[in-house]
Amino acid sequence: MSLNSKKRKLDRSAQDNVYFESYSDVTIHEEMIADKVRTNSYRLGILKNYKAIKGKVVLDVGAGTCVLSIFCVHAGAKKVYAVEASAIAEQAKEIVKLNKMEDKITIIKGMLETAELPENVDVIVSEWMGYALLHESMLNSVLFARDKWLKPGGCILPSVAELYIAPINDPVVEDRLNFWSTVKDQYGVDMTCMYDFARKCIMMTGEIAVNSVTMEDVLSHPAKFAELDLHTVTTEQLESVKGSFNCECFGSSSVNALCIWFSVTFPGEDRPLVLCTSPFKQETHWKQSILYLDEAVEVTQDTKVAGEISMSPSVKNPRHLCVHLDYSIGKHTNKSKTFSMGDGYPDPE
Amino acid sequence: MSLNSKKRKLDRSAQDNVYFESYSDVTIHEEMIADKVRTNSYRLGILKNYKAIKGKVVLDVGAGTCVLSIFCVHAGAKKVYAVEASAIAEQAKEIVKLNKMEDKITIIKGMLETAELPENVDVIVSEWMGYALLHESMLNSVLFARDKWLKPGGCILPSVAELYIAPINDPVVEDRLNFWSTVKDQYGVDMTCMYDFARKCIMMTGEIAVNSVTMEDVLSHPAKFAELDLHTVTTEQLESVKGSFNCECFGSSSVNALCIWFSVTFPGEDRPLVLCTSPFKQETHWKQSILYLDEAVEVTQDTKVAGEISMSPSVKNPRHLCVHLDYSIGKHTNKSKTFSMGDGYPDPE
Repeated sequence: MSLNSKKRKLDRSAQDNVYFESYSDVTIHEEMIADKVRTNSYRLGILKNYKAIKGKVVLDVGAGTCVLSIFCVHAGAKKVYAVEASAIAEQAKEIVKLNKMEDKITIIKGMLETAELPENVDVIVSEWMGYALLHESMLNSVLFARDKWLKPGGCILPSVAELYIAPINDPVVEDRLNFWSTVKDQYGVDMTCMYDFARKCIMMTGEIAVNSVTMEDVLSHPAKFAELDLHTVTTEQLESVKGSFNCECFGSSSVNALCIWFSVTFPGEDRPLVLCTSPFKQETHWKQSILYLDEAVEVTQDTKVAGEISMSPSVKNPRHLCVHLDYSIGKHTNKSKTFSMGDGYPDPE
Repeated sequence: MSLNSKKRKLDRSAQDNVYFESYSDVTIHEEMIADKVRTNSYRLGILKNYKAIKGKVVLDVGAGTCVLSIFCVHAGAKKVYAVEASAIAEQAKEIVKLNKMEDKITIIKGMLETAELPENVDVIVSEWMGYALLHESMLNSVLFARDKWLKPGGCILPSVAELYIAPINDPVVEDRLNFWSTVKDQYGVDMTCMYDFARKCIMMTGEIAVNSVTMEDVLSHPAKFAELDLHTVTTEQLESVKGSFNCECFGSSSVNALCIWFSVTFPGEDRPLVLCTSPFKQETHWKQSILYLDEAVEVTQDTKVAGEISMSPSVKNPRHLCVHLDYSIGKHTNKSKTFSMGDGYPDPE
């Protein structure tokens, strides 16, 4: 091993440490469990699939506080292996004990990739979705678990993930840019020249923002640009998740960003259960991910907003997300922009 | 110079870089100028002191967008030297030009400590206050400017700073701790054992929180524990700003934190103008600084909350703040706790 590749390996594990440490604080678990859309969807998605779970062996990937493992026991699981790399595993042990499920749930503290299970499993359950679905790249661990531990014909919950995109007008950013022209009236100081600087700091950094988009600010029907079947998708395919979109604006407005979100689906005999993080649905802690254009573009009814989007793990840190966008808005054709999402999303409130 | 002290020196300047870079983004300047209490107080405080400013030479320490320099020109200043170390100095130049004040305001890009002024000044104006007054330690630069550049008998705006403390009940933290006992009703999973872990993560870290305290949550009259006269206070005195407090609770409640805030005063012939960041006044971007106790203490009417507080720059990073508290609440006597405030306050919203 060359010094260089050794260094890269050390860096990688340091990145993993930063990632897992972020899950050792109470705030993130409180936020996830307090997210009723998320937790109730998983609860119902698991209970709905009781036929697949009852009397069976389950693997919970990234179990956190073990809440999904406990739902699986509620659904009749014979045994659940709960793998969790962060220090929250200690609290999970107490929770399992308090709920008198020590005989059913075995907590394995460590990374999924190195965990040793005593047997193969019938079901994998995992809440692996990051901001914009793929931030944190945790899906790789689920696929690793599937390929190593899932019995043939086994079940993955949820089983499908979909990605959506739509043009939006973010009024907060508009207001922030226009703020500088209000300073003269307020204090007698002309600061209109700050507009361009503000636009550079707010819209041109290429950082993906995580924030709540109001449905009124969505300017067209959303376009689905990617679908991942968790039973078949490969780690190689996750290196670049891409798709195209073609939207037509509802009416006159100003597009200053594209917004992306995701849904995941639990299979169901009658009908599947969908956990959807769309701006048209009840808010979740994932909110939406916002890709600001360098400048706003005026649109009218039927103006086309079309293009291609590709999402990849960042080269520097595979848990970070890189998004490349090629797009046209009406007559503004052949534009492109690259975005990234690092640690620490979203801004806590 | 030993390698060690050289290293320390490099670290110190790296810390300064982090500090000054944080002021090169638009968000912080937008927040400060949009803070009407702050900006209007400075505007009125400066205009009120027109007799000291008219026809005189002013130094603006940490000028930012130069808004205070422009107020000084409005008040009749002959000349303003605006010293600013961060990249926002470039925008300040444009603003000064746009307001046609290039002949009155000279922007000096660099640190105050190394800036060369062509003359001594009659007035120093500066908005140097950090969270809990002393976070960021910028007052040291104002004192340096005073000792090097202010003419004898010159004026400093504002001229006095005061620090206050009061016991509070923070209901958000109470709710966050109690959240874990609501999980069973919501999802059928008993998570009451998370209470202690949550308390450890939220109340026991010793990090100073910056947040808005509602006046109803303040449990006694506030106590003033320190006063700094900017004409006389020394850098050595800022190494440890301390004082005592003695509060009596209004009625039955639960103290889970002490809250600190500050005011600064502009002199005035008739009456001085006070910029106050108290929870009893209109909110500012400084909000209040909250020191959580390890656990809540029940109080009733007239329960004494008393003690001593000392504030110092952190040893590791002099721009960070360290607070030590010795206190008693009723029969809970001889308690003490140390707090710190690092970069990145408050959580942006």
